[in-house]
Amino acid sequence: MDNKYTNNNPPGLSSSEDDSLAATGMRAADTLLRLVPMGLCIAALIVMLKNSEANDYGSVAYSDLGAFKFLVHANGICAGYSFLSAAVAAMSPPSTLSKAWTLFFLDQLLTYLTLAAGTVSTEVLYLAYNGDKEITWSAACGTFGKFCSKATASVVITFVVVAFYAFISILSSYKLFSRYNAPLPHPNSKQQLQTPVFHG
Amino acid sequence: MDNKYTNNNPPGLSSSEDDSLAATGMRAADTLLRLVPMGLCIAALIVMLKNSEANDYGSVAYSDLGAFKFLVHANGICAGYSFLSAAVAAMSPPSTLSKAWTLFFLDQLLTYLTLAAGTVSTEVLYLAYNGDKEITWSAACGTFGKFCSKATASVVITFVVVAFYAFISILSSYKLFSRYNAPLPHPNSKQQLQTPVFHG
Repeated sequence: MDNKYTNNNPPGLSSSEDDSLAATGMRAADTLLRLVPMGLCIAALIVMLKNSEANDYGSVAYSDLGAFKFLVHANGICAGYSFLSAAVAAMSPPSTLSKAWTLFFLDQLLTYLTLAAGTVSTEVLYLAYNGDKEITWSAACGTFGKFCSKATASVVITFVVVAFYAFISILSSYKLFSRYNAPLPHPNSKQQLQTPVFHG
Repeated sequence: MDNKYTNNNPPGLSSSEDDSLAATGMRAADTLLRLVPMGLCIAALIVMLKNSEANDYGSVAYSDLGAFKFLVHANGICAGYSFLSAAVAAMSPPSTLSKAWTLFFLDQLLTYLTLAAGTVSTEVLYLAYNGDKEITWSAACGTFGKFCSKATASVVITFVVVAFYAFISILSSYKLFSRYNAPLPHPNSKQQLQTPVFHG
């Protein structure tokens, strides 16, 4: 695929100070956009980790439910990845093609991971609030109301993270694929490389 | 964003027969790639729709569980969208920018929708197979084994659809964003539009 990568910049145009300012601004925006979900993931993780309730009917903790354990792990991975990718976005200005591909794939993966964790936990909460008579599952939130509302808070934060990552993966796919030429209806990208450019 | 759209093809190069053959081949591949998940979605939908079991302990149907109803709806939407988008991909050769944006957004949405339906149903199946002692939910698959294995089949097919749609959305984001110039380190895309091209 490397042979399709073209530098469309005419060599006659030197990069001005405006361009480097725009580059710095864009890098700062990219870094910030990754630090916000980092904070949100840590918040969702802590809210769920500290979530337990004991009363006369018994006790319940997040670790009693596989879905909530998955949510905690997913938020931990998300916080770590967000921090690392923010550091990468902030520190190294020359954006290479392999870096763009890596960020693209990992951003997509994180979106799918956080979405899966959020939906799985939503389903458990739905069952915990409503129960399911047909298969004799009782509504647990009647007796463990505080536990359920804290879990709901953690899940809502996780869905905000999903929205951030859906946006981040659109941006990183833009950054990756805008380096390539349009596949069709203009497939002669190789010929373009040899087209002489007249600098007026 | 329209002002950043550049046609990089020098007007001096006429599109050869090879190019139109490649265009036809690519359109056919795109159409096929959307017809396969259409078939899979219909299969997953039918398997789940016909899924019910009655025995001495009682009866259970897919409609008793919200997650499985969601799976059926998601697979129905997926089948319909796959068919429509395959028709769009097959019929109209001039790929406009708005068409590329529409396909890009809807493909992403379908990926998220099928992933959510698959994970939610997986969680219900996990609970149905294993139960959860702490919140007194019993394992239902001991008494409804046939129901659970058919539901598992439907969920597995749905995850194959997710893989197809993850790939389709990568392709459609490539098709969309390769029309734009790289944002950085070459941000002077506007100037490029006015660069005169010398036809050698």
